[in-house]
Amino acid sequence: MIEILVVGSVALDDIDTPFGQARDALGGSAVYFSAAASAFASVGVVGVVGSDYPLDRLRALKGRNVSFDGLEVREGTSFRWAGEYDYDLNSRETLLTELGVFGEFQPTIPEPFRGASLVFLGNIDPTLQLDVLNQVDEPKLVLCDTMNYWIEGSREELLKLLERVDMLLVNDAEARELSGDYNLARAASWIRDRGPKYVVIKKGEHGAILFGPDGVFFAPGYPLEEIFDPTGAGDAFAGGLLGHLARADRIDSEELRRSVVYGCAMGSFACEAFGPDRLIGLGVAEVAERVWAFHEMTRFERLTVQP
Amino acid sequence: MIEILVVGSVALDDIDTPFGQARDALGGSAVYFSAAASAFASVGVVGVVGSDYPLDRLRALKGRNVSFDGLEVREGTSFRWAGEYDYDLNSRETLLTELGVFGEFQPTIPEPFRGASLVFLGNIDPTLQLDVLNQVDEPKLVLCDTMNYWIEGSREELLKLLERVDMLLVNDAEARELSGDYNLARAASWIRDRGPKYVVIKKGEHGAILFGPDGVFFAPGYPLEEIFDPTGAGDAFAGGLLGHLARADRIDSEELRRSVVYGCAMGSFACEAFGPDRLIGLGVAEVAERVWAFHEMTRFERLTVQP
Repeated sequence: MIEILVVGSVALDDIDTPFGQARDALGGSAVYFSAAASAFASVGVVGVVGSDYPLDRLRALKGRNVSFDGLEVREGTSFRWAGEYDYDLNSRETLLTELGVFGEFQPTIPEPFRGASLVFLGNIDPTLQLDVLNQVDEPKLVLCDTMNYWIEGSREELLKLLERVDMLLVNDAEARELSGDYNLARAASWIRDRGPKYVVIKKGEHGAILFGPDGVFFAPGYPLEEIFDPTGAGDAFAGGLLGHLARADRIDSEELRRSVVYGCAMGSFACEAFGPDRLIGLGVAEVAERVWAFHEMTRFERLTVQP
Repeated sequence: MIEILVVGSVALDDIDTPFGQARDALGGSAVYFSAAASAFASVGVVGVVGSDYPLDRLRALKGRNVSFDGLEVREGTSFRWAGEYDYDLNSRETLLTELGVFGEFQPTIPEPFRGASLVFLGNIDPTLQLDVLNQVDEPKLVLCDTMNYWIEGSREELLKLLERVDMLLVNDAEARELSGDYNLARAASWIRDRGPKYVVIKKGEHGAILFGPDGVFFAPGYPLEEIFDPTGAGDAFAGGLLGHLARADRIDSEELRRSVVYGCAMGSFACEAFGPDRLIGLGVAEVAERVWAFHEMTRFERLTVQP
């Protein structure tokens, strides 16, 4: 029995930044997510790789309570992605996307994964994301990622999916495109009217905002002095968020606030090295230390002098 | 005797946004600043206007404890600015900058203003900003604004000025240009090494960051559902910041954190209407309510479950 189910890509990445490069790095949304979430809870991965995938390199994740019993190995090539970042690390160019066997991915959730209390639908075709929801029992929270490709090309399916999602995770550009509204506060309302009780808007170096029935919660980006590789930061964010909720074993306004901070913390760790290695090496204490830093960075006492 | 001294422009603005327009609106850094700061403290304005300036329209500010005894009226035309905002309200085009008599501005600080405990050097020539510092007694804190024009054209003078400034207020692009470093954390360190004990980096809708000897403090932007006109938001921020410090009558780590939140609150009010009218109408209670909202938006309890 696992606590968190993730469905997404398991890939090999080539990454170029002004500060270095990585070839054949472990990548994909399910890898970054599980690397982060497994600091706190057991994770089951559902995905597909080709017969060329270096499965032995997933050993470090297995040692962290990540199960790959839902990872199908198919004759063919694995998902490959290559990207290049500009000096500012905020904009990147995708140089290569080879779906390989991922192009025919049909998620099948193994029986022992179906009772997961938390589900992360990584950024894949909304029709497949909906398929996953039809195979699970009654998760306490379903977190869903998406991207401009699906917002533009599979809008109907995405809107249908949103009716069954508890929390949507998008970046600011995606929230604007989905809602057709530039104003983020109104964009979040628009999305929440379509189903998700919560919307989390990721703003990269500017942090993240949670919109929900209890109002708005804002967490900043961590002011790293050295950023090496932002690849996977969004999935690491999702992993920190659900990982914390699994550990807290309670979903209320207070834990949701904290979970967003754990998300930002994990997103910042993801940027400190190429690939998911920094995340895989993280212990709970080190994460808690960074969460403390976020608390110090944002706290202020409301009452001061009398009006 | 006034508590806060501001030196800057007193202007007339023409503003076009997708949501409306204003003609001959009260504008200029000293006007927006004093409109915000005067919610909390007495402010003395030093500036210059032409003989065409509608001085009677400053009456509302005078009623808020703003003294214009340092406002010189010269034969000629007043500073005029015209700008047009895009739909996203983040980018604007300057359509007109007519300095008029402001082009020969030589600030003279009236005797009763020289003992001000807080000084705001609005965005003018760094040589004039330095002139001002040579005329005041011993302020407790000098806050200084600047812009790309001076960073590029008067770099030497600006660096000389920085040695005598306690806090520099710049936006992210200016911090990057001044330091030559894209990374904001390193850019802030670079600036602090040149003199200012504190650096506040304004990030528009993404809030503001305070860097100082006690670390980093982050305040978000207020998620307004309707933004009408961002003109003057940066000067309103400065006014909220110094206004709060004047009222608190203490400059320490805790009050500085709060002052940045008061700055963000005032910046958000500035966006709610054309010109400074919204600020001029603000009472302390309404500002405190928004500061409460900022507190609610960012607070989280650090300790949760045991590792």
